[in-house]
Amino acid sequence: MSLRIGLIGAGIMGADHARVFAEEVPGTALQVICDADRKRARAAADSTGALDVTDDPLAVVNSSKVDAVVIAAPDPFHAPLALACIAAGKPVLCEKPLSQDVAKCLAVLAAEEKCGRRLVQVGFMRRFDPSYMEIRSLLVRGDLGKALVFHCFHRNVSPAYDFRAEMAICNSAPHEFDVARWMLDSEIRTVSVCRPRAGGDTAPVLMMLETEAGQLVNVEVNISASYGYDVRGELVGEKGTAVLRAPVHADINLGLKQINTYPADWRPRFVEAYARQNRAWVKSVNTGNPNHGASAWDGYCSTAVAAAGVEALHSGKPAKVELTAKPPFYA
Amino acid sequence: MSLRIGLIGAGIMGADHARVFAEEVPGTALQVICDADRKRARAAADSTGALDVTDDPLAVVNSSKVDAVVIAAPDPFHAPLALACIAAGKPVLCEKPLSQDVAKCLAVLAAEEKCGRRLVQVGFMRRFDPSYMEIRSLLVRGDLGKALVFHCFHRNVSPAYDFRAEMAICNSAPHEFDVARWMLDSEIRTVSVCRPRAGGDTAPVLMMLETEAGQLVNVEVNISASYGYDVRGELVGEKGTAVLRAPVHADINLGLKQINTYPADWRPRFVEAYARQNRAWVKSVNTGNPNHGASAWDGYCSTAVAAAGVEALHSGKPAKVELTAKPPFYA
Amino acid sequence: MSLRIGLIGAGIMGADHARVFAEEVPGTALQVICDADRKRARAAADSTGALDVTDDPLAVVNSSKVDAVVIAAPDPFHAPLALACIAAGKPVLCEKPLSQDVAKCLAVLAAEEKCGRRLVQVGFMRRFDPSYMEIRSLLVRGDLGKALVFHCFHRNVSPAYDFRAEMAICNSAPHEFDVARWMLDSEIRTVSVCRPRAGGDTAPVLMMLETEAGQLVNVEVNISASYGYDVRGELVGEKGTAVLRAPVHADINLGLKQINTYPADWRPRFVEAYARQNRAWVKSVNTGNPNHGASAWDGYCSTAVAAAGVEALHSGKPAKVELTAKPPFYA
Amino acid sequence: MSLRIGLIGAGIMGADHARVFAEEVPGTALQVICDADRKRARAAADSTGALDVTDDPLAVVNSSKVDAVVIAAPDPFHAPLALACIAAGKPVLCEKPLSQDVAKCLAVLAAEEKCGRRLVQVGFMRRFDPSYMEIRSLLVRGDLGKALVFHCFHRNVSPAYDFRAEMAICNSAPHEFDVARWMLDSEIRTVSVCRPRAGGDTAPVLMMLETEAGQLVNVEVNISASYGYDVRGELVGEKGTAVLRAPVHADINLGLKQINTYPADWRPRFVEAYARQNRAWVKSVNTGNPNHGASAWDGYCSTAVAAAGVEALHSGKPAKVELTAKPPFYA
Repeated sequence: MSLRIGLIGAGIMGADHARVFAEEVPGTALQVICDADRKRARAAADSTGALDVTDDPLAVVNSSKVDAVVIAAPDPFHAPLALACIAAGKPVLCEKPLSQDVAKCLAVLAAEEKCGRRLVQVGFMRRFDPSYMEIRSLLVRGDLGKALVFHCFHRNVSPAYDFRAEMAICNSAPHEFDVARWMLDSEIRTVSVCRPRAGGDTAPVLMMLETEAGQLVNVEVNISASYGYDVRGELVGEKGTAVLRAPVHADINLGLKQINTYPADWRPRFVEAYARQNRAWVKSVNTGNPNHGASAWDGYCSTAVAAAGVEALHSGKPAKVELTAKPPFYA
Repeated sequence: MSLRIGLIGAGIMGADHARVFAEEVPGTALQVICDADRKRARAAADSTGALDVTDDPLAVVNSSKVDAVVIAAPDPFHAPLALACIAAGKPVLCEKPLSQDVAKCLAVLAAEEKCGRRLVQVGFMRRFDPSYMEIRSLLVRGDLGKALVFHCFHRNVSPAYDFRAEMAICNSAPHEFDVARWMLDSEIRTVSVCRPRAGGDTAPVLMMLETEAGQLVNVEVNISASYGYDVRGELVGEKGTAVLRAPVHADINLGLKQINTYPADWRPRFVEAYARQNRAWVKSVNTGNPNHGASAWDGYCSTAVAAAGVEALHSGKPAKVELTAKPPFYA
Repeated sequence: MSLRIGLIGAGIMGADHARVFAEEVPGTALQVICDADRKRARAAADSTGALDVTDDPLAVVNSSKVDAVVIAAPDPFHAPLALACIAAGKPVLCEKPLSQDVAKCLAVLAAEEKCGRRLVQVGFMRRFDPSYMEIRSLLVRGDLGKALVFHCFHRNVSPAYDFRAEMAICNSAPHEFDVARWMLDSEIRTVSVCRPRAGGDTAPVLMMLETEAGQLVNVEVNISASYGYDVRGELVGEKGTAVLRAPVHADINLGLKQINTYPADWRPRFVEAYARQNRAWVKSVNTGNPNHGASAWDGYCSTAVAAAGVEALHSGKPAKVELTAKPPFYA
Repeated sequence: MSLRIGLIGAGIMGADHARVFAEEVPGTALQVICDADRKRARAAADSTGALDVTDDPLAVVNSSKVDAVVIAAPDPFHAPLALACIAAGKPVLCEKPLSQDVAKCLAVLAAEEKCGRRLVQVGFMRRFDPSYMEIRSLLVRGDLGKALVFHCFHRNVSPAYDFRAEMAICNSAPHEFDVARWMLDSEIRTVSVCRPRAGGDTAPVLMMLETEAGQLVNVEVNISASYGYDVRGELVGEKGTAVLRAPVHADINLGLKQINTYPADWRPRFVEAYARQNRAWVKSVNTGNPNHGASAWDGYCSTAVAAAGVEALHSGKPAKVELTAKPPFYA
């Protein structure tokens, strides 16, 4: 029996999730796709063979034909819909961030703990990217010695809409926050932020994070990088380092140049990460065993780091990340 | 409704097909796995959720519960089982080579033409590898000018069993024969073979192929390359060249070395190619529209080139590839 | 007529300068090599054909047979010997740092200005490295847009002697300070420093520098990097970025690995930079025209930045770089 | 005392030799530059500080002020001038080929043997390129096991003048012939040639060479490669392979592309090889000890291989390289 999925949100991200399930994740059936814009839902359904469409997200959550929910709606809807899924007792893969509001993340934690079952996975797909996974396995095997510094670069061609530095911190950087916590196996305790004045409004945001274990995470989030979508990283250990490699399929030699191409957005870079994440999620739902994906706790932590980041941006000083005590439920 | 697949052969290749369908190809159900060694069939079934096992391949072909067949049995069984599938009117994805015997390939062509439907796809998965696909699309767009030379390198760590040069030509090189025909859009007309005497019995086999359109294909098949599984290629056009890039996920800096790793066999290198091939095959079966995969005609041609290659190996002279006229059925 | 050079210091750096002049810089004659350890001076002279040796550095400076002086003595001797060269009216190539003491740097500036001729070049050889030069020329041509951030990584295998973080800032990082000032064409105004606690005494030093023009320089100086000598950098501009590439001569494929090698120290990495620097210096001396190498002013600035860096290290807060007004003499 | 050099030929190659001696080879003085076009000689002298110019090559060879001669005149003058140098008892660095005429090469061998001193070095500079040297040292150390196949790619942007395939064989490919003989430590015995008909007159020339020791050398010489000057190579050994890396100084990220650049001709690619070759030649002249550069025998062998290559081109069949017995003088 296929896992019947209700997908909420048919924008770029939601449409891509529909494609991933339809083309790359066996054992699933797209039961219904929901979008405030029904035409958009219909287009996504048509190209993926989803059975039904709606504009009512709660109908999806509560449908007896839906076994599990994927939330790819705009950010403000993530937490309310995740709460609805918990209330309905349904597993949910919720796009990041869990919420941009720390309090709402805490509400999800409370609800999940009360319900007694881990139902929420947050869509920090980099944990399933083969490059990050390979580097983490080198660390775990001890090949690199103890981890000391993690350099992260996150670059987009241009902002989707009017750029604000807060967006870089709350919307883009949480990917780094989460993958750094996972890679380094430690919570982030302080955040410093600076930006090159020369860059004006669209200047890259540089952050220095310190973990509880005393590692540093050195982040550039550059939403106006112009040249391409590019995510890089290097883990510096005591004995050596490891460097992320992005997928490249061909070198082209032409006109006194050797060329390979960057994608215009994240989808080609992380196509494999999404496929693996969604398969792992389906497997977890089917077996009841968690995978190494991000829990609601992880989602909360990234948002708390982002909040400290915004504080640091405004104050010009390092900000402390205030975390609630980790419930044993998430151990 | 899922496409119910009968898989014949549960060796390395067959087990990997089972994994691909179970994990990466939605819309399919592994109905039955067949192997002369039932334990092996059982192991493959257990790890992929296949419903049934058997040691009778014809029972698979003729089962009313099987909609389409995948042949991953030893080479000598490929053509007979393909013929059985045609007789049963069932679509079949047949591992390469279609047969090592030209006459048997022709028998499959004849049977398929007589039956009037294109039922056979041969498993030349490189046509679905993102690197080869990207280079071909550069050619088609005209970016590289007219194709002139295709350099191909095919290296294995060590031979699976006692090495004979004929194996390199009949078993390994057909991948190059097929992908070159597809890339260059022309039939291969002559084959020259030479080997470095210094290499003794396990010496690499070097082949020079000429196409009808006057391009050259310069092939090294090196089954004892020791250092890793490595497939490379460069297409030389009038205006520029394009070079295949294999997947690499991380660079490791350690002990005065920058390192990245080679796989020990073909599976990691072509994991994406197999997934895409098998998805495309399922789509073709479901829609009745052919994909750009290899037909029975393509399978026949590769075998005919291999036969000329063996002749050239033995005679020490260039050998002509004798092809029957291409039936309009395969146009 | 060859330029007759007196070389003071025959340690690793001095011996390498002797080799560079003897093997790679036409138009020069090594007149005399000086070292407190005369055996060391003799060894350097024997392998380079230098005419004489001594243990008296002032005798070198004041010799009528010496046209120009190279200072590669230990750091504390740099400024005194540079002052002696100015007093003697002789051009001098002084290894970095000009002095670790800001006051002594200022004394050199004052003496040089008073003498009325630019006699001092400081050995910041990276300005002559083909990689840095290529990136700077991209910037100057405008290909990358305005410069925003310069990421710098400076890694040594292990410290030469007992490690202290101050060494990383005063001894290693000045290379970054100078090359960043040159690349970005702006003075550095503030320095922040942090280190991963997890790294203990030998932890890498991370610095964030801000320039007067509002660019950021993000520096890792890692004197215990273990894996090799490695200097990297990336210039982030508005339109794109440029990445330094170190010289690599071969890839080796062996044992499931693709490998290329790191040098154990800086000499192979910057062999070309030293040759070009020393040639450019000789040309400047012969023609009286300055090159794009570092002046005494540049030497002073790097030391002032290092002083601020040490202050920031100790205080845990950003430190301001206090620069004297730039004398028009250095415009 | 500097070695006083007479340079014959001030075309692209000769002018570059003048630059190399003036800028990169200490211990030499450019005494005189000779060219049939005195203006060209004058221009080269002006930019390098050469003392004199002439249009009489024999005056250079016989001048009492010239200690050693560099021949960079057009090919037909190489052997006659080399003979004149031998007659004058002067060491000579002769650009490749020694002669395109086998008989003239033999005349040089005879004259040199008779004179009893090794006076001739042929300018096969790749033997001094750091990439080729590194690969050879891997072979010598045994890291790669026994050498089996050497793949060589030699690409120019476009032919200097009207293209003929014979030029590719007699003018370009001798670099491969020589470096392969040196790398593999064996003479070449047979040559096969083929070209892609699709390429028309400017089609690349593919050659397969077999050595006496039973290795194969697989060569593409592509004088109309369009995309850049590019020389590549891979040595395939029993245990692994090694791949040449060309110098690259920076990667540029711009416009959805990662780019690095190819030079338009050989000079940037082999700048270091020429400098090392010329330094090694000067050292040999000064010390009387041969270096690992190409002797007159090596020059002869390359021409003999080229002659066989032209024969193979015309006959369409493999041609045997007919070598005279190697005089013990060249052992």
